[in-house]
Amino acid sequence: MTHLPGTSVHLIADLSHATGLSDLALIEATLRQAALAAGAKVLSVHVHAFGGDMGVTGIALLAESHISIHTWPETGEAAIDLFVCGKEVNAECGLAVIVENFAAVINQTFRIERLSKNILTENE
Amino acid sequence: MTHLPGTSVHLIADLSHATGLSDLALIEATLRQAALAAGAKVLSVHVHAFGGDMGVTGIALLAESHISIHTWPETGEAAIDLFVCGKEVNAECGLAVIVENFAAVINQTFRIERLSKNILTENE
Repeated sequence: MTHLPGTSVHLIADLSHATGLSDLALIEATLRQAALAAGAKVLSVHVHAFGGDMGVTGIALLAESHISIHTWPETGEAAIDLFVCGKEVNAECGLAVIVENFAAVINQTFRIERLSKNILTENE
Repeated sequence: MTHLPGTSVHLIADLSHATGLSDLALIEATLRQAALAAGAKVLSVHVHAFGGDMGVTGIALLAESHISIHTWPETGEAAIDLFVCGKEVNAECGLAVIVENFAAVINQTFRIERLSKNILTENE
């Protein structure tokens, strides 16, 4: 994986009031759609359902790093990470797809520039 | 996945001066050892080598969320995330294993309490 210094962005978002959080097929599709929207290349997608109405953990390995989703249907919450490297990739576009697919509210986001140049911006 | 509010911890660390960053077997073993040290249960481990002396992306899906490692051997850097839920799990213990296995220096860490109760602590 190659990267230019200062191009590694880690966008963190905690969502609430979300629906579809135990829908394994939706979560896998959302990971792929988010990667496409971000302009990233999917290497593989892995999802795990905790059973019944419980949550799902899903991760897309990307050529540009990863996207992860952890869900808690019982509280309508989901924890999202989009970690992407390169000037051509846009984490925010990926997050927009995830928020839309789960009809969710963004509670809080953090945007961290990882590695060589670490800058953190908190948005509440 | 169940969690108590306020027990979801996301520990982010950017490492430098690290060795072994293109060693796929070491990275897979380190993910498993870090989960064990943190007191977490591994569901599955997925690693992808970008070829030759290039980097590796590795992710452990946990019953308690995930651990991810992205490496850049050409600069000696690695980006680490340990996202764990529950009072019995300790992300810092997992990070200590990773730092030791790669003989790395921690450049910067962020500790974020995810979901219901978001608190961020920056350590430089």
